[in-house]
Amino acid sequence: MRQNPETKVTVESQAARAAAIGRMLRPRSIAIVGASPTPGALGAKLLANLERNGFDGAIHLINPKRAEINGRACLASVDDLPEGVDVAVLAIPQPAVLDAVRALARRKAGAVVIFSAGFAEGGAEGLAQQQEMARIAQAAGMVIEGPNCLGSINYLDRVPLTFIDTDISAAQATFNRAQPSIAFLSQSGAMMAVVARTLADRALPLSFAVSTGNEAASTIEDYLEYALEEPGTRVLALFAESFRHPQRLLAAARRARELGKRVVLLHPGKSSAARESAATHTGALAGDHAVMRTKVERAGVVFAETLEELGDIAEIALRCRHLPRQGLAVVGESGAFKALCLDWCEELGLELPAVHDADSPALREALPPFVALSNPLDLTAQGLVDPDLYRRTLAALLGDERFSAVMVGVIQRDAIDVKLQPLLQALREQPGHKSVIVAGLDEGAQVPAHFVDAFRALGVPYFPSTERVLRAVQRLAAHAGRSSNAAVLPPIPLALPAQRQVVPEYEAKALLAPVGIAFGASRFARDVDEAVAAAQALGWPVALKAQSEQLSHKSDAGGVALNIQDAEALRAAWAQMHGSVQAYDASIVLDGILVERMGQRGLELIIGAKNDPQWGPVILVGLGGVTAEVMQDVRLLDADLSQAEIVAELNRLKSAALFHGFRGAPALDVAAVAVLIERLGQVLRGTPAIREIDLNPVIVYPQGQGVLALDALMLLD
Amino acid sequence: MRQNPETKVTVESQAARAAAIGRMLRPRSIAIVGASPTPGALGAKLLANLERNGFDGAIHLINPKRAEINGRACLASVDDLPEGVDVAVLAIPQPAVLDAVRALARRKAGAVVIFSAGFAEGGAEGLAQQQEMARIAQAAGMVIEGPNCLGSINYLDRVPLTFIDTDISAAQATFNRAQPSIAFLSQSGAMMAVVARTLADRALPLSFAVSTGNEAASTIEDYLEYALEEPGTRVLALFAESFRHPQRLLAAARRARELGKRVVLLHPGKSSAARESAATHTGALAGDHAVMRTKVERAGVVFAETLEELGDIAEIALRCRHLPRQGLAVVGESGAFKALCLDWCEELGLELPAVHDADSPALREALPPFVALSNPLDLTAQGLVDPDLYRRTLAALLGDERFSAVMVGVIQRDAIDVKLQPLLQALREQPGHKSVIVAGLDEGAQVPAHFVDAFRALGVPYFPSTERVLRAVQRLAAHAGRSSNAAVLPPIPLALPAQRQVVPEYEAKALLAPVGIAFGASRFARDVDEAVAAAQALGWPVALKAQSEQLSHKSDAGGVALNIQDAEALRAAWAQMHGSVQAYDASIVLDGILVERMGQRGLELIIGAKNDPQWGPVILVGLGGVTAEVMQDVRLLDADLSQAEIVAELNRLKSAALFHGFRGAPALDVAAVAVLIERLGQVLRGTPAIREIDLNPVIVYPQGQGVLALDALMLLD
Repeated sequence: MRQNPETKVTVESQAARAAAIGRMLRPRSIAIVGASPTPGALGAKLLANLERNGFDGAIHLINPKRAEINGRACLASVDDLPEGVDVAVLAIPQPAVLDAVRALARRKAGAVVIFSAGFAEGGAEGLAQQQEMARIAQAAGMVIEGPNCLGSINYLDRVPLTFIDTDISAAQATFNRAQPSIAFLSQSGAMMAVVARTLADRALPLSFAVSTGNEAASTIEDYLEYALEEPGTRVLALFAESFRHPQRLLAAARRARELGKRVVLLHPGKSSAARESAATHTGALAGDHAVMRTKVERAGVVFAETLEELGDIAEIALRCRHLPRQGLAVVGESGAFKALCLDWCEELGLELPAVHDADSPALREALPPFVALSNPLDLTAQGLVDPDLYRRTLAALLGDERFSAVMVGVIQRDAIDVKLQPLLQALREQPGHKSVIVAGLDEGAQVPAHFVDAFRALGVPYFPSTERVLRAVQRLAAHAGRSSNAAVLPPIPLALPAQRQVVPEYEAKALLAPVGIAFGASRFARDVDEAVAAAQALGWPVALKAQSEQLSHKSDAGGVALNIQDAEALRAAWAQMHGSVQAYDASIVLDGILVERMGQRGLELIIGAKNDPQWGPVILVGLGGVTAEVMQDVRLLDADLSQAEIVAELNRLKSAALFHGFRGAPALDVAAVAVLIERLGQVLRGTPAIREIDLNPVIVYPQGQGVLALDALMLLD
Repeated sequence: MRQNPETKVTVESQAARAAAIGRMLRPRSIAIVGASPTPGALGAKLLANLERNGFDGAIHLINPKRAEINGRACLASVDDLPEGVDVAVLAIPQPAVLDAVRALARRKAGAVVIFSAGFAEGGAEGLAQQQEMARIAQAAGMVIEGPNCLGSINYLDRVPLTFIDTDISAAQATFNRAQPSIAFLSQSGAMMAVVARTLADRALPLSFAVSTGNEAASTIEDYLEYALEEPGTRVLALFAESFRHPQRLLAAARRARELGKRVVLLHPGKSSAARESAATHTGALAGDHAVMRTKVERAGVVFAETLEELGDIAEIALRCRHLPRQGLAVVGESGAFKALCLDWCEELGLELPAVHDADSPALREALPPFVALSNPLDLTAQGLVDPDLYRRTLAALLGDERFSAVMVGVIQRDAIDVKLQPLLQALREQPGHKSVIVAGLDEGAQVPAHFVDAFRALGVPYFPSTERVLRAVQRLAAHAGRSSNAAVLPPIPLALPAQRQVVPEYEAKALLAPVGIAFGASRFARDVDEAVAAAQALGWPVALKAQSEQLSHKSDAGGVALNIQDAEALRAAWAQMHGSVQAYDASIVLDGILVERMGQRGLELIIGAKNDPQWGPVILVGLGGVTAEVMQDVRLLDADLSQAEIVAELNRLKSAALFHGFRGAPALDVAAVAVLIERLGQVLRGTPAIREIDLNPVIVYPQGQGVLALDALMLLD
């Protein structure tokens, strides 16, 4: 098989990028440009961090006004540096940054860390400076972290390239390289500081924390590609507001999945207000958030919605050997808690499989007769007099194949050892293949640290609230429910008409019908006699639709006439339509008019397909009709889902009940909708020059009777 | 004015109930039935609680097998008690409970606390025992707390009538009676223990914690009526699964509002699964959850959705002198945080008023030029070099009338004193009339306790996460946005037909039309010639609708014919309709047939009104049509809203955009919908014998053209 030269170059440049990032994060020599003896100054704080954490490589201080700082000699200028310093950190004001970058490129520095703000996010001049910086970095093969960042911390080798107070020994006291760890990569410096602190408080070991800032040259994808190959890193937690290299991000996510690593992403931008805000403060344009999310989720990334969730999901992803899938068992000690869980799980959309006496002999055996089987299970206060009940119950659930995960909610204020000890015993006796999470109901109650540590040692997170567990489990279970395997059907390349931007309906239908998209029987007519003959051949009544590349919104121009019953009416409609279109825009020349047999009524869907310029092919499907449109009842699908996955997505529409025989109506042909969407996906994947295909509406008929697309609009690049 | 004797009795019995509850919660003599020397036994734990907390009234121990316990003499039996002990606590097994209750009634005990389970929730025998217990209590005027409860704690007088380990001195170390406090009343014993622990950990002083269990005799309404009159109690936090006295609950909530007190309620049962669960474990039938919520919210109660929220809302309600209304300002230190807040607030439905340079001179003055005005505000890291920025910013926001509340989100890990000190200064300089809440972004970061205490002393809660603040503020702001003032329009009594349960359409329309409900022009016809004459008078086309009390679902019986164009068609339809109805049910005798002019098409609403037997009159309004029905796009309204409030509720429908000129359609006559609903409310309030009125569909026409109810079904008690 012939090696694709482009692929080779990409692999090589990826390897080169990773080597450069590795050199920066694991430097043997560091220059501090703007070193300072003043406590609190950025340069001073950086040096203090390096000294506190015992950095034992070379440190070069640059300060034109001082001969030495802390007993270390100072150089007057970047030009005095030895050639090839691994990384230089700029603790200098914005106006001096660009010259320093130039000088560092001359001295063949491997990387530059730039804290200063005031570049792309600060107006035209700043943007120009940042672009110049990017050019220099590109030419010199130099990594730039920032500008407008907080630097990075390599916890594995104890190298803090940041001015925020960092004591790695204290944070990672119990950490060793063999333990799985989390890499946290953030475009925001503030979020790097915040999340690193939160994860440390939960005793979650970090491998790297990196803030990429404005990403003048190196981007979050670069750091991700590097960090996911670090063997001990099990979880990659990301905070991003805009991906500059969507396809590389997706490839990295797929690579992480191959390696059995978990990627968690917090990405504001669901609201238009947040997207505008991101554009302002990062100087980057946000793409289509919904498309990004569809693609990134499918590549295997779990989305967190808030900072709380980011920490919660990261903790479960790090500690649990097996992630929660659908099938959660909940154990509690009160009926009130059970009722609260039921409400909350319904709100979240988290299913709790039912259990009954007949189908759960082991569980029934574990419980006293007066404890009714249910999920959530209410053990009552019986565990206080029969502590082994906790062990027996958990043991039975660990052995029950219906459950992938178990949450135990405990009231912590009373007899906590009586409850936790038997739970630990059950976990030790059956170190299983399930995720188990213990959580307290009474937030703030004191739990002896040795218990929390013992659970963690067994791969069991201990949470402060059951609400948070259920929310995080829901995110992970929903994620597990999504298949990440691309369907095997091949792409379908279409032979597109040359030099068209808008493909009129009759041509679009002619292109798509052979692929298997069902349209109503129609004939294209260039004059009215042809149209009458066509109608007679098709059967009355018919619709007439004006056809021209210049006419992408036919209805607005009076270019559609429905329910024409006979030849006389057709002739009248033909004349009127030409008149209306002329009146609408005299420059439009019609190719002709499409004569189509009127279809039967049915449920209306809207289906649109597009090749997103950044993220690639996606298909939108939703309920048509005015109310459905107002309620935005739509799903966005990747273009390579299997039919079964497409059906599952259709069933996630809020009005999915309409498919399944609502109020005595017949069940509809959802399978035919899935085939149509599958074909559209093949076409999109095979024909990248298609920008958009809109089939609106698509009518769905009863089972076995298929679907019919009434219109087809195609836009090309 | 004549005094209504019933009202007087009610007031007197309420006073008597309150006195009895007060005697139980503030006893001077306590009997422990089932006193025990065994550590861990319920009776022993109860005695230990009383001794630990220095109860200085009389304690009577009852244990037939012991002469003394802990140096206290034991009585052999309840019969040996002096007459009129204030409260007896039963620490005895279930089978002995009923006899003990009988004996205590004979000894004229004021109250009995019953921990044992196995009554109404435990089957027929338990239910019978509980009913007998209720009878005894009623006859003797005795309070019963429980059965199946954890007892109660009076923190004000340090009386713990519970077996859960309680050290009031430790929990309330800094508490004095002058401080506002929280009463927590819970039907669930477990939730009493859980929430009391959580509130104590947040240093929120409690006045009472009560668990009412199965409520054999005394109910949560009794304790609420008592606790809300306790002067220091500012917040009444409730956990309930079913209210046994809905109207008393509503009256208590309104009374709390008069007193300036805040009531927060956590009530599972949104999901049907939770409602079933509650019915099982409490032995009480849950009523209509949505109706309960509508009525209870309108009476002034804030709903919490989870345990976390219950604590969060209670803390804000206790600490903030003024509760958050709409108009929140958010202050942060990073663009990423700003974007996250925007997403989260949109998700929650919490509005953040916009600020601009032109309309915010004071705020503009407070900030450096490079900080752009926005809400959330991003102060950047500038506060680290200019700490007074925090003071100036908060001061400007406190003085800005657009904001009722301010949340400051701080990164706690760095320079926390530099940030919090100036915030405290601003609060001290301007001890205002706004709610201010400070929250950390980096959960788990250590914040010196003296700062938290200083904020709390100024009425400012300090939260562990900004997500939780925003969620709680949204609940409170939405609550404040709901008016609680009943509309002034008087009830309208209708003269109902005697001995009817179903009022057929023609009669219902005749009853409702004079009130101002708009129906299409129609005439009732007893024979076909009358019908033809009616149609000619009304104008073709017409609809025919079969009329009979026995026929509440006309369409199912073929009792509706639409679009009848002429006399011939009418005669045919008339004959066919009689045939269909006979075939449907031969026992049905038609009163006649209603002839109605066909209405124009328009937007379809469904409007239903009912007098709930427990909660009173409510009106449901929603979008009609199949899709809208599937999506359950409905609102439930109290029956005494003003027109403006009704319009606001209509605008909360998910598809409200359809009212306001969607896609070039004309704006619709929402005002006419509001009038119709207002009238229905007057009718419901004035005519309690109406069980239900269904107007389905109601067609809404363009502005100024009103509405038309096409059908009317009325059910009577």
